[in-house]
Amino acid sequence: MELSFYIADLMGVAVFAIAGTLLAFRKQMDGFGVVVLASVTAIGGGTTRDLILDAPVFWLDDPTYFIVIGAAALGTIIWLRFKAYIPLNRLLIADALGIAFFTVLGTEKALQAGVSPMVAIVLGTMTAVFGGLLRDVMARDIPMVLKSELYATTCIAGAIVFVVLYDLNQSIAMVAAMLTTLVLRFGAIRYHWSLTVFKEHR
Amino acid sequence: MELSFYIADLMGVAVFAIAGTLLAFRKQMDGFGVVVLASVTAIGGGTTRDLILDAPVFWLDDPTYFIVIGAAALGTIIWLRFKAYIPLNRLLIADALGIAFFTVLGTEKALQAGVSPMVAIVLGTMTAVFGGLLRDVMARDIPMVLKSELYATTCIAGAIVFVVLYDLNQSIAMVAAMLTTLVLRFGAIRYHWSLTVFKEHR
Amino acid sequence: MELSFYIADLMGVAVFAIAGTLLAFRKQMDGFGVVVLASVTAIGGGTTRDLILDAPVFWLDDPTYFIVIGAAALGTIIWLRFKAYIPLNRLLIADALGIAFFTVLGTEKALQAGVSPMVAIVLGTMTAVFGGLLRDVMARDIPMVLKSELYATTCIAGAIVFVVLYDLNQSIAMVAAMLTTLVLRFGAIRYHWSLTVFKEHR
Repeated sequence: MELSFYIADLMGVAVFAIAGTLLAFRKQMDGFGVVVLASVTAIGGGTTRDLILDAPVFWLDDPTYFIVIGAAALGTIIWLRFKAYIPLNRLLIADALGIAFFTVLGTEKALQAGVSPMVAIVLGTMTAVFGGLLRDVMARDIPMVLKSELYATTCIAGAIVFVVLYDLNQSIAMVAAMLTTLVLRFGAIRYHWSLTVFKEHR
Repeated sequence: MELSFYIADLMGVAVFAIAGTLLAFRKQMDGFGVVVLASVTAIGGGTTRDLILDAPVFWLDDPTYFIVIGAAALGTIIWLRFKAYIPLNRLLIADALGIAFFTVLGTEKALQAGVSPMVAIVLGTMTAVFGGLLRDVMARDIPMVLKSELYATTCIAGAIVFVVLYDLNQSIAMVAAMLTTLVLRFGAIRYHWSLTVFKEHR
Repeated sequence: MELSFYIADLMGVAVFAIAGTLLAFRKQMDGFGVVVLASVTAIGGGTTRDLILDAPVFWLDDPTYFIVIGAAALGTIIWLRFKAYIPLNRLLIADALGIAFFTVLGTEKALQAGVSPMVAIVLGTMTAVFGGLLRDVMARDIPMVLKSELYATTCIAGAIVFVVLYDLNQSIAMVAAMLTTLVLRFGAIRYHWSLTVFKEHR
């Protein structure tokens, strides 16, 4: 992996670890609960992808990921001790950048492993959203992924753009895919877009 | 895999995808929630089995599974838009056929991988019921598998019949195993059989 | 694996299976619910560790584990039919011995697989606590692991002691690590130690 990719990856991990720590805060959990929720959010998606691809799990030979997760969790805890206020807006932006990047990363890894484009889209989306899904299930929260505005759908869209443009030019594919996810996600947050498939019922 | 097996497999996947979509409907989920619950129900059990056997995950090289899941989910959504009514009875029958077949499929794959009969029974049952278990956990429902009449127990019975008759004749083993599961499951539904192991308490 | 290790392993599995059965009892589950909760508790942590290490899943070639789980669940069911009373105190002691041993077992297996000490600590802790976490998530209980006094933190401490002393002498490392976990865990139960990281809030 190139250095710029690696740094983006670690930044995504940090953002997700912060999101996990915030949920542990809201759920009144203590030390280890924070560690688990931060870790599961940050590396759950990529771990599932690597298990399914039968690739070496990405953090197995690199403890850096846990150092980043620990630092992000600790920073969040310290922040919460001094400020009651959480800049949710900025967190949503960081999270959108995170899922946009993880989608591209996961889709590329799957394509490189030789799977078909459709399966690569599934695995790319899984990389981006499965960590958050596991976190919410563990914390007994309603999985945001299953409810929130276009959340995972924006990843699917990004992954589709990526596989379509991949053979043309990888850098262009990456930028276009991330922009697709970001624009859709920000639009969904701003204008409350959603993908209602069922009619109202009760 | 032979063609008839493959078609039965895809039909089982479709039935499970419908069950997942119906739960997403009941839980008022939207687009992606449907996709996740339908997929997890349909391929969660087989995926877990393949991971544990360290076999290539069965859908990794075959996007057909996702096409079938997508079609089944879409068909269910369209059906629900026009009819409020869900033919639960017919769904239960289809589901019983699905678990009967998946049990045999999973047990056979495990035996072929060279594990002992007892472990094959565990993995066969896991193939049939783990998808539904994951679905219910994700949707924060009481796992039907853990509560419902003899549900998984019928799979264990079918798997036992399969491993006992396997060395004799594979076709007979398959038919007898599926019949075992089906008869027990229909009996359990019809006469409310259950396997109470604890005395009443409160 | 040496015989004494193997016996300790099976005893740990039995203790965890009993804990799973007790939760199934409390949740009023029936036959299969007991089997699933007992199994998930007993082998969930080690299975996850082996999947991530890409090692053969430890129970795949050894049905003894399921015989032990079955016997432990059956014994618990019979006990509960004759006595309403559960010796919670003795169970807590057995559980503490179980997590202390599983932490060492998992950390050692990870070190032998060649991962770095930090990752070995993660996998050792995962071996000890992930089964209970999965059990609680499946039974829709508040994961004890995420809430209870120092529970998993005592495993992390034990795993750290183990990796630090490992190069010196493996037997000393094992005894010291298990003692660390046990002393911390008993102290936490006795004096209600906890690792509060968040200030009170509501």
